[in-house]
Amino acid sequence: MNSRLKTTHDQSRHAVVLLEAYRRIRSATEALCTGLSAEDCAIQSMPDASPVKWHLAHTSWYFETFVLTPELSGYQPFQQQFKMLFNSYYVGVGDRHPRSERGLLSRPSLEEVFAYRQHVDRNIERWIETRLSSAPMEVFELGLNHEQQHQELILTDLKHLFSRSPLKPSYRKTSANSPAATREMRWLTYPPGLSHIGWDGDGFAFDNELPRHQQYVEGFQLAARPVTCREYLAFIDDGGYERAELWLSDGWEMRSLHRWTAPLYWEKKDENWYEFTLMGLRALDLDSPVCHVSFYEAEAYARWANARLPTEAEWESVAVEMPTKGHFAESGILHPIAATDEGDGPHQMFGDVWEWTGSAYLGYPGYRPVAGAVGEYNGKFMVNQFVLRGGSCATPWSHIRPTYRNFFPPHARWQFSGIRLARPSESR
Amino acid sequence: MNSRLKTTHDQSRHAVVLLEAYRRIRSATEALCTGLSAEDCAIQSMPDASPVKWHLAHTSWYFETFVLTPELSGYQPFQQQFKMLFNSYYVGVGDRHPRSERGLLSRPSLEEVFAYRQHVDRNIERWIETRLSSAPMEVFELGLNHEQQHQELILTDLKHLFSRSPLKPSYRKTSANSPAATREMRWLTYPPGLSHIGWDGDGFAFDNELPRHQQYVEGFQLAARPVTCREYLAFIDDGGYERAELWLSDGWEMRSLHRWTAPLYWEKKDENWYEFTLMGLRALDLDSPVCHVSFYEAEAYARWANARLPTEAEWESVAVEMPTKGHFAESGILHPIAATDEGDGPHQMFGDVWEWTGSAYLGYPGYRPVAGAVGEYNGKFMVNQFVLRGGSCATPWSHIRPTYRNFFPPHARWQFSGIRLARPSESR
Amino acid sequence: MNSRLKTTHDQSRHAVVLLEAYRRIRSATEALCTGLSAEDCAIQSMPDASPVKWHLAHTSWYFETFVLTPELSGYQPFQQQFKMLFNSYYVGVGDRHPRSERGLLSRPSLEEVFAYRQHVDRNIERWIETRLSSAPMEVFELGLNHEQQHQELILTDLKHLFSRSPLKPSYRKTSANSPAATREMRWLTYPPGLSHIGWDGDGFAFDNELPRHQQYVEGFQLAARPVTCREYLAFIDDGGYERAELWLSDGWEMRSLHRWTAPLYWEKKDENWYEFTLMGLRALDLDSPVCHVSFYEAEAYARWANARLPTEAEWESVAVEMPTKGHFAESGILHPIAATDEGDGPHQMFGDVWEWTGSAYLGYPGYRPVAGAVGEYNGKFMVNQFVLRGGSCATPWSHIRPTYRNFFPPHARWQFSGIRLARPSESR
Amino acid sequence: MNSRLKTTHDQSRHAVVLLEAYRRIRSATEALCTGLSAEDCAIQSMPDASPVKWHLAHTSWYFETFVLTPELSGYQPFQQQFKMLFNSYYVGVGDRHPRSERGLLSRPSLEEVFAYRQHVDRNIERWIETRLSSAPMEVFELGLNHEQQHQELILTDLKHLFSRSPLKPSYRKTSANSPAATREMRWLTYPPGLSHIGWDGDGFAFDNELPRHQQYVEGFQLAARPVTCREYLAFIDDGGYERAELWLSDGWEMRSLHRWTAPLYWEKKDENWYEFTLMGLRALDLDSPVCHVSFYEAEAYARWANARLPTEAEWESVAVEMPTKGHFAESGILHPIAATDEGDGPHQMFGDVWEWTGSAYLGYPGYRPVAGAVGEYNGKFMVNQFVLRGGSCATPWSHIRPTYRNFFPPHARWQFSGIRLARPSESR
Repeated sequence: MNSRLKTTHDQSRHAVVLLEAYRRIRSATEALCTGLSAEDCAIQSMPDASPVKWHLAHTSWYFETFVLTPELSGYQPFQQQFKMLFNSYYVGVGDRHPRSERGLLSRPSLEEVFAYRQHVDRNIERWIETRLSSAPMEVFELGLNHEQQHQELILTDLKHLFSRSPLKPSYRKTSANSPAATREMRWLTYPPGLSHIGWDGDGFAFDNELPRHQQYVEGFQLAARPVTCREYLAFIDDGGYERAELWLSDGWEMRSLHRWTAPLYWEKKDENWYEFTLMGLRALDLDSPVCHVSFYEAEAYARWANARLPTEAEWESVAVEMPTKGHFAESGILHPIAATDEGDGPHQMFGDVWEWTGSAYLGYPGYRPVAGAVGEYNGKFMVNQFVLRGGSCATPWSHIRPTYRNFFPPHARWQFSGIRLARPSESR
Repeated sequence: MNSRLKTTHDQSRHAVVLLEAYRRIRSATEALCTGLSAEDCAIQSMPDASPVKWHLAHTSWYFETFVLTPELSGYQPFQQQFKMLFNSYYVGVGDRHPRSERGLLSRPSLEEVFAYRQHVDRNIERWIETRLSSAPMEVFELGLNHEQQHQELILTDLKHLFSRSPLKPSYRKTSANSPAATREMRWLTYPPGLSHIGWDGDGFAFDNELPRHQQYVEGFQLAARPVTCREYLAFIDDGGYERAELWLSDGWEMRSLHRWTAPLYWEKKDENWYEFTLMGLRALDLDSPVCHVSFYEAEAYARWANARLPTEAEWESVAVEMPTKGHFAESGILHPIAATDEGDGPHQMFGDVWEWTGSAYLGYPGYRPVAGAVGEYNGKFMVNQFVLRGGSCATPWSHIRPTYRNFFPPHARWQFSGIRLARPSESR
Repeated sequence: MNSRLKTTHDQSRHAVVLLEAYRRIRSATEALCTGLSAEDCAIQSMPDASPVKWHLAHTSWYFETFVLTPELSGYQPFQQQFKMLFNSYYVGVGDRHPRSERGLLSRPSLEEVFAYRQHVDRNIERWIETRLSSAPMEVFELGLNHEQQHQELILTDLKHLFSRSPLKPSYRKTSANSPAATREMRWLTYPPGLSHIGWDGDGFAFDNELPRHQQYVEGFQLAARPVTCREYLAFIDDGGYERAELWLSDGWEMRSLHRWTAPLYWEKKDENWYEFTLMGLRALDLDSPVCHVSFYEAEAYARWANARLPTEAEWESVAVEMPTKGHFAESGILHPIAATDEGDGPHQMFGDVWEWTGSAYLGYPGYRPVAGAVGEYNGKFMVNQFVLRGGSCATPWSHIRPTYRNFFPPHARWQFSGIRLARPSESR
Repeated sequence: MNSRLKTTHDQSRHAVVLLEAYRRIRSATEALCTGLSAEDCAIQSMPDASPVKWHLAHTSWYFETFVLTPELSGYQPFQQQFKMLFNSYYVGVGDRHPRSERGLLSRPSLEEVFAYRQHVDRNIERWIETRLSSAPMEVFELGLNHEQQHQELILTDLKHLFSRSPLKPSYRKTSANSPAATREMRWLTYPPGLSHIGWDGDGFAFDNELPRHQQYVEGFQLAARPVTCREYLAFIDDGGYERAELWLSDGWEMRSLHRWTAPLYWEKKDENWYEFTLMGLRALDLDSPVCHVSFYEAEAYARWANARLPTEAEWESVAVEMPTKGHFAESGILHPIAATDEGDGPHQMFGDVWEWTGSAYLGYPGYRPVAGAVGEYNGKFMVNQFVLRGGSCATPWSHIRPTYRNFFPPHARWQFSGIRLARPSESR
């Protein structure tokens, strides 16, 4: 995180802004639970995913642990055992309930967890009031961004849970089909040069977006839009999932082990393709950006298409020149759709689907995590993962930036992860 | 099952009796859910255990599948997909939702499952009315006994779930300590001879209790009561869990793999022993019968005590002469306790704890499962399991008989399973 | 073991006999290695199987550990570390090299292991000479029988290893086809009654054949001969491996997990069936007894054939009346074949294939293992296994008796295990 | 690979040189087998490692498959099934014997494999003679480098096998202790700038060293020498293996799963440290570079030492200026030792230990694998691995270059992998 505030007045105004953000974000989290039963919120469908109830509690635990307990004098924790129960992975904070057992907690009840949230909310208000003028707000601001990340996870984890039920329940009733056919693919050409990469603004950024530094980027071409389901279907129909020569060796093994034959949530019945969405099972929207593919599938698709995935430096050097707009969680659509107005430049760089890059998730030159347990936030995961860029239909709009680095292991498929292609500049 | 009814009048009276039993048993099942939240009822804590909600639905599925669908004309299933969702292991009925995924079903909700139960109840009443005089009631009666078995499983599965929570919730508030110190162990001697084994009455029995047949039983001694926690603690303190020579080879491997050092649910803190019960965590009741031990532990304990486990023929030849009374589920105590009045003969043969026998669970000579999918009830499990006898504090009293054969794999520990010793008749 | 020798003269003669047996058995073991390379003898193809070299060493380890070290004064072990390296499962003797890592021992070399055998042989001769008149010979005699068991394992383990090589090497060049067509199945009827079961002679028997006791056996019919490959093929062709209703639940799971579609070592190519034998791959001999089936397959076959497996008491009560003859290892045929002269009674009770019984492997009433580490020989395996009777084409003839109890887990298939059917006496 | 030869004369001379290299390399491979038994060469100690015999055959398979079969008219394969048996991972070539079952092949014997080698050698000589003037030699030259890689694997795989034996055999008798104490650590400073990275010479290079390209490298400091065992011991003694905050999250998990407490092959007995080497077990050489550490351990050590691992661009920009000399396989020492003459610059960049970099193994900008099955050589492994640089005491000297990129998964420890530190240029 990176907040450089010069004066007391600045700080005070900043605190007011953050408090408003706090209220807005906390209530947005709870709005996601509308229509969910206590059972929907309690179950864990795989070790990677967490119950909604756990997300609700853990995001509160963050504020309790990193803000209220150290900063608010006389603060009484809501429940002593929550310190351990809702710690995700912060070894520096102490013991943790095992990740794979988050779904065993029928107690505390959903109701109690909401009461926990209110307890934390009341105390945060009190803390802001009393500490307005001087408190360092970085850790608090990190908590807001942390909660937004969990908003997205609530949606993707719930989608996974619902997909495992033979009843195929729907979370929302909105309709989310692409409004129009997708235009043919265009390629945009960028010259070589030294690029400045990483965050350099006044607002918030994660530590993994720092330090800003230079990278030499060769000339390249970038696809004007993400790959669509129609295009991906051509890959499937061309035997994409049966041709080892298109795949990384580890990817081929994953495909074989898990018997992948299509993106996660796709189903073929009687020669027709369907996809499970947050609106239930429905016919595949061919014009929409393909999503729920792993890095391995994205990479194999790219090879098949005689292209490759962009590096994160390529992606960022383009994105940094563009307005951060697109279909985000606020749209309520909750599924990627085709863009209507496309213009000449690249589009859908933001929103709809996270775009896998070909860059391993590593620290930037000179990267240092912050001191203390909060330093475990990003740094200790810098291995065996790949960077994704741009946000998705489940990401809050206010959460995203051109320098934002998301990361997942190459086999992960339950996020809204899609594909944008790149290729050398001389290609055609 | 074994119901031999001669006349129409008999049959009609029998149906009335069964309908009363149906009402009583079905409502007893639901009474077990008092105080449980929807979350408590939805979660599966291990593949062996099932969510309470699943038990509620599956016992209704039984009546729907084996009684209403084939026997009640015009019956409309409550929900078409329940046929697959709540089938446990009846291959003959069709597809089954995987056992290990019973905890992924946030839908149907607990409320819907109760509605399902009412739907089935209403139709069972209708069916009994219209078919009173002629319908074969065996499958229906099996359903009643089936539901009673699941009543016990609701308790043991819930106990397991609660034990996995760091909050250690309690299911009931009753106090269940042993009322008095246990008397010293006495041994009762029985002469050799041919014994008649298996069911031969008019009422209900499972097919695995048939056919009645003769077995030659050598002279033996039987312990007058189950092994207590105090006695078992002496085994632990004598290095019982560290001495390979006391164990079967497979048992030793299990002990090592799972790092067993005491019965399931026992915990040592600051030199004191505690046990998790349905009433929460509490100090170990030393006078109570030890429970939640595997066959392997029971067998190792017996070897340490210079004794052995009884065969099921030995056990039955003694039990058949005794009244079927003891601490069962109806007592509400929900934990084994010491007996107060002990008398001269063996006691606590029934209730408190299931008693592991040294007999592998196999079919009796001439055993034949009934035809059709219901024949999968018992027969297909006759391998890799051991027989337990006598019922436990979680078994309904009306469910048990001297010939009743319960069975679990030798490593199972989450049932209320305990130890009664035997030894050759010349021992002292 | 059970050797009751009254006088010194008896003991002395007994020792001479045993020394001859020792020489004969030890050299028979080594004769099995003719034609094998050091590599053939070093590799372990699965945790259940052991390298030939390990068998050669372990059988010598037995004599070194249980005879020479305690009984021969001044005995120098061949190599100190062999005590641990070649201990199979005797916890009482001390540490053991892990079973699954027996194939990691390129050292000691095969040559060194043969030198080890000679060292032990020389010292055994010396021990017998010096101790002729008084030494208790039970443990020595057990060692002889132990070595014979490993002779059979050398053959079955090597067969498994060779079967895993795409080169399908052959161990011996003999031809072993059935000499004639098998006669149609006949059933022999036996009346009910009390039978004496277990060993009662003067010679050697394992402790698990004791004590002799009575069992009440109901009337039954026994198949006159083992099931043939032709008959088993009919089971396969009738969908035997696809019909869950024919299988025990655990058996069905094994079948699914390991994708069993035929006995181990059977292969179908271009509509023809082949089997891998110690003579290499060859066309299936339809008239020969089916072998390399698990208990699960035997049990499912029996159900399909409207029969069941015999109990070990049934089997023994018939076998005890018959001469112990048949195709054993000494014949050199090393594969089951059809019998030529069949007579009126049951035949092939001995040799050709081990016959799965429906009896779980448990101790007889009053069973006690002998004291000390040798007591681990049989007793600690009395769980999760089934009894097989009669010996196979890989068993030495002098090793077998009507009371002999072999045992393997129900999923084991790499022994020469086959099927003999039984059914109630009133069947036809 | 990269061979650009202009004229026929050049090509002819090149062929002569390559033939000499072929003879030298092939016989160097076989020299590694001196003193090994057939058993030593047959066994596979873990799926990552292969039997020596397999390496001997597979390297011949390479020449048979990629050179002789397509290029030598009338070539008769030595044995048809070897095509499948000794294919490592080339899907484009057809079926492969499973990697984890390479140790099941007692046949072909070691002798036959040597005959196979001679068959291939004879035919390669014939091919070179007849095709001298025109044949494209890239694939042949790749085969030479391929065989050198397997020379190193023969040593590391055999070391692993021997380490698993309680006998702790030694492969060679040479003594390999560090000749002198290691000097204190010095840091060398390098300025920022654009560096040319990748191969640009006339000789051979792997495709993953191409294309040569520019990278912007910030100023940095590089340790003058690798980390020693003495320094690493300080990390252990400071609780390095017990402090989660020093580790990447995945690394901590690996450490816990495998219970790492020291580098592979280290053993503590009675407060003294030993290490298993190719010369057997011996006291730890404190002055020697630490080796057999995973990337995770290297990375944790660096964090503890307030430093980091160098990127491969940093490493290469330094190494490219230096002579390629050091302790390689040719020295016969077969274990890393301290350097004697250290000079002012960095030393031991080459030889002794492979140095983990902080760079994920990915393709360089514009990377393209060559067409055909040979293209599977490097490209398909570009995920989930890290780059190591500089060669080790088991690498042939003629095999290494400053641009050489070795790669292993971050948990791999059985290679001679060590640690060189880097840090920002302003550090002190």
